[in-house]
Amino acid sequence: MQHYFALSKNLDLSISDLHHINNVMRMKIGDQIIIIYNKIKNFVELTEIKPVGIKFKIIKSETFTRENPEIVLAVSLVNEQKWDLILQKATELGVNQIIPIVFERTIIKLDDKKLNQKQIRWQKIVKEAAEQSHRFELPIISNLLSYHELKNISGDLKIICSTKEKQTNLKDILKNNLNCDRIIVVIGPEGGLTDLEEEKLITYGFQSITLGNNILRVETVPMFILSIFNYEMMR
Amino acid sequence: MQHYFALSKNLDLSISDLHHINNVMRMKIGDQIIIIYNKIKNFVELTEIKPVGIKFKIIKSETFTRENPEIVLAVSLVNEQKWDLILQKATELGVNQIIPIVFERTIIKLDDKKLNQKQIRWQKIVKEAAEQSHRFELPIISNLLSYHELKNISGDLKIICSTKEKQTNLKDILKNNLNCDRIIVVIGPEGGLTDLEEEKLITYGFQSITLGNNILRVETVPMFILSIFNYEMMR
Repeated sequence: MQHYFALSKNLDLSISDLHHINNVMRMKIGDQIIIIYNKIKNFVELTEIKPVGIKFKIIKSETFTRENPEIVLAVSLVNEQKWDLILQKATELGVNQIIPIVFERTIIKLDDKKLNQKQIRWQKIVKEAAEQSHRFELPIISNLLSYHELKNISGDLKIICSTKEKQTNLKDILKNNLNCDRIIVVIGPEGGLTDLEEEKLITYGFQSITLGNNILRVETVPMFILSIFNYEMMR
Repeated sequence: MQHYFALSKNLDLSISDLHHINNVMRMKIGDQIIIIYNKIKNFVELTEIKPVGIKFKIIKSETFTRENPEIVLAVSLVNEQKWDLILQKATELGVNQIIPIVFERTIIKLDDKKLNQKQIRWQKIVKEAAEQSHRFELPIISNLLSYHELKNISGDLKIICSTKEKQTNLKDILKNNLNCDRIIVVIGPEGGLTDLEEEKLITYGFQSITLGNNILRVETVPMFILSIFNYEMMR
């Protein structure tokens, strides 16, 4: 069934969602959709469909209770194509928050004006991906931060995907740490973090891990990590 | 160090690799590269560089011995953009063989002529991805098969990523099955396998598993599965 995230508590939909219902899906009175707001999925039956708005009756509602840890990815900005892929796939794989970070080796630079335009685009990508994968909540995309600002971020498990660490791997860490509420994962740019960045992050309470012997592109790391978290949560 | 797969035992490189060395990397005499052939990585130092060929001396060679199971993905053909992503990411994540399959709900159709052109393009994508991720071997891309042809494929563990199976998940299966030589994974098209296809595959020795509660796009499934195999092989 088609999922839409509502704009407000009244379950109002955006213009583009109304367009989707009217012109893409060509829905009819009696059709059912799911409208989500504030982690509640409302199964509704359409009673009136107009380009400017729809009316419906709620058939049932399902409330979401999180069972798994909240996953926050703090990822180096990368070029648009790769960044879009990260947003889409990370949303599909259940990420809760994405923090774009500028590291020393981050090549992409965005001024405030460009960043505002990008934010709108990024929200659109995660909304569509969250609807397609039937999620109860939209991932949060934070403001662009410098890695120093990770100093005060709270998390029960805070890890750095390191290219230097050779001993401790992700499996070692996850073995004893899955009963936590919030996991923060730092993913650096191409070329990796500088030594100084990694040292600083360690003083901020992060620990370095290796993802194994594969040489992964930056945009692959979020999917890799999230797939493994999903796997570890399988019951 | 830059990796190139050779065309032959003499470590001849393709025209495009020579172009890459000459014009993209602008390499000089004395620079080192790695040339791979037949699962042997040759570390070589360049002694002559011309557009039509290079000369070099071999400094050392490393032979590859496989420690992990061979992974074969039998995946429904999908549109070009998604298929390219599958080839690139699956190569990066260590796939050994990809078999494009036509299922009943596969939308993409290719005639022999188109298929030949595509095969050339596909080989190029996996070669580049394998070089970038420093692999010892190129994944094999098989001919297009119908799912019936999976009847005779050999594997110690043969699984179907099912949308119907709700009980047995990937974790249950991998717990007891990682000491095997060859794993075959079937990934269906959007809309999934038909009941008949799934039943047939089960008579061919496959077993259905669920990947959990996520709703994943077809192109995400190979990355998901391969990330988890990599994770399980971490030592």
